[in-house]
Amino acid sequence: MIKAGIVGATGYAGGELVRLLLAHPQVKIVWYGSKSYIEKPYAEVYQNMFKLVPDICRDDNLKEMAGQVDVIFTATPQGFLASLLDEELLHKVKIVDLSADFRIKDVATYEKWYGIKHKAAQFLEEAVYGLPEVNREKVKQARLIANPGCYPTCSFLSIYPLAKAGMIDLSTLIIDAKSGTSGAGRGAKVNNLYCEVNENIKAYGVASHRHTPEIEEQLGYAAAEKVILNFTPHLVPMNRGILITAYASLKKKADGSLPALAEIRQIYETCYEQEYFVRFLPEGSCPQTRWVEGSNFVDVNVQVDGRTGRVIMMGAMDNLVKGAAGQAVQNMNLMFDLEETMGLKLVPMFP
Amino acid sequence: MIKAGIVGATGYAGGELVRLLLAHPQVKIVWYGSKSYIEKPYAEVYQNMFKLVPDICRDDNLKEMAGQVDVIFTATPQGFLASLLDEELLHKVKIVDLSADFRIKDVATYEKWYGIKHKAAQFLEEAVYGLPEVNREKVKQARLIANPGCYPTCSFLSIYPLAKAGMIDLSTLIIDAKSGTSGAGRGAKVNNLYCEVNENIKAYGVASHRHTPEIEEQLGYAAAEKVILNFTPHLVPMNRGILITAYASLKKKADGSLPALAEIRQIYETCYEQEYFVRFLPEGSCPQTRWVEGSNFVDVNVQVDGRTGRVIMMGAMDNLVKGAAGQAVQNMNLMFDLEETMGLKLVPMFP
Amino acid sequence: MIKAGIVGATGYAGGELVRLLLAHPQVKIVWYGSKSYIEKPYAEVYQNMFKLVPDICRDDNLKEMAGQVDVIFTATPQGFLASLLDEELLHKVKIVDLSADFRIKDVATYEKWYGIKHKAAQFLEEAVYGLPEVNREKVKQARLIANPGCYPTCSFLSIYPLAKAGMIDLSTLIIDAKSGTSGAGRGAKVNNLYCEVNENIKAYGVASHRHTPEIEEQLGYAAAEKVILNFTPHLVPMNRGILITAYASLKKKADGSLPALAEIRQIYETCYEQEYFVRFLPEGSCPQTRWVEGSNFVDVNVQVDGRTGRVIMMGAMDNLVKGAAGQAVQNMNLMFDLEETMGLKLVPMFP
Amino acid sequence: MIKAGIVGATGYAGGELVRLLLAHPQVKIVWYGSKSYIEKPYAEVYQNMFKLVPDICRDDNLKEMAGQVDVIFTATPQGFLASLLDEELLHKVKIVDLSADFRIKDVATYEKWYGIKHKAAQFLEEAVYGLPEVNREKVKQARLIANPGCYPTCSFLSIYPLAKAGMIDLSTLIIDAKSGTSGAGRGAKVNNLYCEVNENIKAYGVASHRHTPEIEEQLGYAAAEKVILNFTPHLVPMNRGILITAYASLKKKADGSLPALAEIRQIYETCYEQEYFVRFLPEGSCPQTRWVEGSNFVDVNVQVDGRTGRVIMMGAMDNLVKGAAGQAVQNMNLMFDLEETMGLKLVPMFP
Repeated sequence: MIKAGIVGATGYAGGELVRLLLAHPQVKIVWYGSKSYIEKPYAEVYQNMFKLVPDICRDDNLKEMAGQVDVIFTATPQGFLASLLDEELLHKVKIVDLSADFRIKDVATYEKWYGIKHKAAQFLEEAVYGLPEVNREKVKQARLIANPGCYPTCSFLSIYPLAKAGMIDLSTLIIDAKSGTSGAGRGAKVNNLYCEVNENIKAYGVASHRHTPEIEEQLGYAAAEKVILNFTPHLVPMNRGILITAYASLKKKADGSLPALAEIRQIYETCYEQEYFVRFLPEGSCPQTRWVEGSNFVDVNVQVDGRTGRVIMMGAMDNLVKGAAGQAVQNMNLMFDLEETMGLKLVPMFP
Repeated sequence: MIKAGIVGATGYAGGELVRLLLAHPQVKIVWYGSKSYIEKPYAEVYQNMFKLVPDICRDDNLKEMAGQVDVIFTATPQGFLASLLDEELLHKVKIVDLSADFRIKDVATYEKWYGIKHKAAQFLEEAVYGLPEVNREKVKQARLIANPGCYPTCSFLSIYPLAKAGMIDLSTLIIDAKSGTSGAGRGAKVNNLYCEVNENIKAYGVASHRHTPEIEEQLGYAAAEKVILNFTPHLVPMNRGILITAYASLKKKADGSLPALAEIRQIYETCYEQEYFVRFLPEGSCPQTRWVEGSNFVDVNVQVDGRTGRVIMMGAMDNLVKGAAGQAVQNMNLMFDLEETMGLKLVPMFP
Repeated sequence: MIKAGIVGATGYAGGELVRLLLAHPQVKIVWYGSKSYIEKPYAEVYQNMFKLVPDICRDDNLKEMAGQVDVIFTATPQGFLASLLDEELLHKVKIVDLSADFRIKDVATYEKWYGIKHKAAQFLEEAVYGLPEVNREKVKQARLIANPGCYPTCSFLSIYPLAKAGMIDLSTLIIDAKSGTSGAGRGAKVNNLYCEVNENIKAYGVASHRHTPEIEEQLGYAAAEKVILNFTPHLVPMNRGILITAYASLKKKADGSLPALAEIRQIYETCYEQEYFVRFLPEGSCPQTRWVEGSNFVDVNVQVDGRTGRVIMMGAMDNLVKGAAGQAVQNMNLMFDLEETMGLKLVPMFP
Repeated sequence: MIKAGIVGATGYAGGELVRLLLAHPQVKIVWYGSKSYIEKPYAEVYQNMFKLVPDICRDDNLKEMAGQVDVIFTATPQGFLASLLDEELLHKVKIVDLSADFRIKDVATYEKWYGIKHKAAQFLEEAVYGLPEVNREKVKQARLIANPGCYPTCSFLSIYPLAKAGMIDLSTLIIDAKSGTSGAGRGAKVNNLYCEVNENIKAYGVASHRHTPEIEEQLGYAAAEKVILNFTPHLVPMNRGILITAYASLKKKADGSLPALAEIRQIYETCYEQEYFVRFLPEGSCPQTRWVEGSNFVDVNVQVDGRTGRVIMMGAMDNLVKGAAGQAVQNMNLMFDLEETMGLKLVPMFP
């Protein structure tokens, strides 16, 4: 059995990690870290865990934890892991970091968008961006995983096949994203109160959201060119789910015509046919968050608008699963040479 | 592997059966019955099942189905199974009926509350009321299970320990129940449209809901006396979940005093200490539907009001799991001599 | 024009007062008090007021305010007004207090349930409980109004006719209440976050909610007897609305029979036929919060269960209007000799 | 008093017309038309109208209605009015048509996108597109108003100032729209059931929604050029509200630089400074549907992304008010020479 420690176990992503790892046949959680609830029974914070988790919340002592576990999941604010990481720690345990600390290779970009100093830049090169669908082999070898952001995971997987195939003009790329409220975390803020979120939709972080450079970097690798794009997230009155609607102009073919939908669909089919967690939907069927809730699936589809010459790329995902805890477990499985889908063949729950 | 057929696989309870059985290690669904969607791929009706269920919906032919399966689940309107059941069928397969047809032993009571003629009353005596927490041994021997209603399951398990112990005056019993909207089914009715249910709460079926006699009958067995009670259901703007708040006067002790909370709690503790799916909560902690969502748990607690001499009994449950499909699988496990919790150790999903 | 000041203008009840008073033809708000947002434009706190309210939030200086306004509304936590009220203040302005400070005549009861010392008990006798449907004439003469609580308003008006008429055994009275989340206020608490409230229902304050003695006192006046009852509130995932479901045993007639529904309905009809804001619904039609949202109406109905001999009394209301700000304006209208319905003939908004 | 008749009074837009007209000081509704509920009391269909509307629903007889009213509102499916309109009718009454029948001047475009034959094309030229902010003077003279669609109203008003000023490259225009569920109407469809819409977001009508050509036509007039754009609507789990997020490339200035945000803001300020119902928000403040709910306001704002050279235009509106019934009343006010804002100075209701 793999022994796991979770730092930030009482946030929503941390709670989802607990849900998934409890059902994982090869993992035992031995450390429930939560600075806010030290000494409190975990099942008092999350009463769904009553009779399932007898453990008490403990402090976030990475060094001590490293002596007791095989893998540490850090579901913490930005800067936490970077401020504590050192070679000694990485020597002892594998780490899957759910924060943004090691997602962006360029320190200056990280520091500009996140507004904090990076304190462990020496590990940026080693850290593997944990999107198994593109970095599977690297993940298997990694000691340190930068678990992708929720918006970037869904955005990237929706656009990746066409970016890689060079079918779209990436300078025209616009991503309009919608997220459920669990993505805003469990902090007690007026803006996240029930009455403020319910019966409302709004954009936020317009032209300034931190996930923008992460998406740009990853799409840049896929397309082998620099990508600058618009990314606009919206807050939707629902608990879970992210929906991506992305727009880009199709490159015309040599004869000046647009590629056919069938041709574009074939690119997605080929790209994802081996991927268990990416479901490329039948023609005409729009991804919807309700069909993936509670699961590690990303549902993807694509439509062509012949009038404007654009392709509309869509993706739906559970932000707490494939967008956070599920992907973290998927990475852990690969790092420990387990079946990639182990503990993750969750059937989406509807309604 | 047990081969299972589902009649009414495209209703919400049917869909939940599919979700649970797909994850069950000893079951294979071989017949997805749905009169409304015959010939349509199941995954087109429930897109969450895309790539998980390749099957096509089929007609509800019980006789043909019986030749191909070991167990039939009927998630159908009242009267369906009663109109088709015969000895030949029961000879071939075990049946778990999620409708009300065989829940009420007294034909007259059934016909009065449901307003239809019972067409298979000869099987009423044989049918076992499938509440494993009270009828476990009978369920193991049964060919025909009357799977309890959602409200009755949650109501009964919240009240049962005190009813059995003779602690409450059952003539004072009042059950105020609240349910999520999936309990109303997937039929296209104006009253169940999003805009009609959202931002609303209402009582319905006041003094006339069909689950009333079912609760009365079962509590009657537990208390060994005739029970007449008030039951008022309410529709709550959420997908899943039932919450029961029940009130009854405590019987006074010989010295005229009320029993202490500790004494009452001990009765619940003793009653449920062996039950995996009933979680008796710590003192002062109210059951909430969010803590059981997606799981087969019923969370129960109790409070005493010394001022009025009443006990307030509370229970929370997922109406589609312990209130329907989960309990059906629990019964199936017992009927086929499997571990009772097999495929049902679902961790509640929050948020 | 009546000049009004609001203390606590940035809470939900305060915001609703602003909405109502902006549309009131005889009132001008001249002081938007909000300790948390001093110096901040009101329309930045509540952006719905952009271009409608140019004012800046000001401190809660009652003395200074009293020099500038004719009426003060205090939408504040318990204890605020009691700690500041004196004869000088009341000499200058009329006060409508939306807190509980002057609702309960008995100081000991107040101090026991609210857990704070009452600092202005000398005004308890003078204060008028501002339920116009029973205290209309007193309200007209009052300097100080104790604006009723949300649950008590809806509970009382649902039960009042039968309590007054002596038709029910008040020792059997049980009130099961359900409220939208705006009732919990705008404080930043984890328990009121969107993801905690959404897809959930729970009871809270079981056998201990502070509105209990308020309801008991008022029903006691109506029935001219001491009333002790059970009151259980529940939190419902919706913004606005309170629904009351109350149960009591009907007193039998001299011949041992139960009163007929028609007789009971007649009592309600007579009681409320002159009341604009209480709508007694047609037989068989259940009150629903959606039908009163945004309005000052309370919809009431009643059902008899011949099997148990109980009457089920139901009421639906918008907790922020008739349960708070609307009733406050109704009281103000009476105090200033205006048409009682002025500014309050709001058509309920659906959906 | 203006006598009004409503055809389709029991749909959501029809119900909202009733709410608004009941509060209008110069209008009396004399005909509640509803084919589905003929002879049924209106207040039984919409119980919020209990004691407010004593009328019975009547058939949709336009000719008879024309003899009794001054203005007819048709809140009906496409094709209804076109199939019945003739000169005689228009001679007797003014008509505000909330359907799409007379919004699009080009018959071929209408017939292609709506898939029905236009039966009254002779009135297309006369019909005035009822967006008072651009067609105020024409509306005043009109007999027949084509009341704009909900998405087009919000989209157009968000983009109009920059389109008219020639600041954006309209060939790059992309509109990503989000709507509450009341926009889907009150028809009993599985897809609009509570459990299907709740906890979900999806795109629909991708590259094919009927409001596309309407937006294109109106923006074309404003910009004096042919406009082809992408429009993608999404369904959001809330009752009311539309949010528009639109993207376009800014035209560069002569020196190759981008226009400054201040310059762009000035264009909006100037364009809307006289408009009561369009609120151009302070810099950095995003439109949110919660801040306009129940009102006739459209909140608009704009952001520039210097990295991509694009402008992001945002608008929020209540789809049933400014997007349907409110705008219809605004048009009626103009047609009858009343104050444009009469009956429409509704303060947005929050929460």
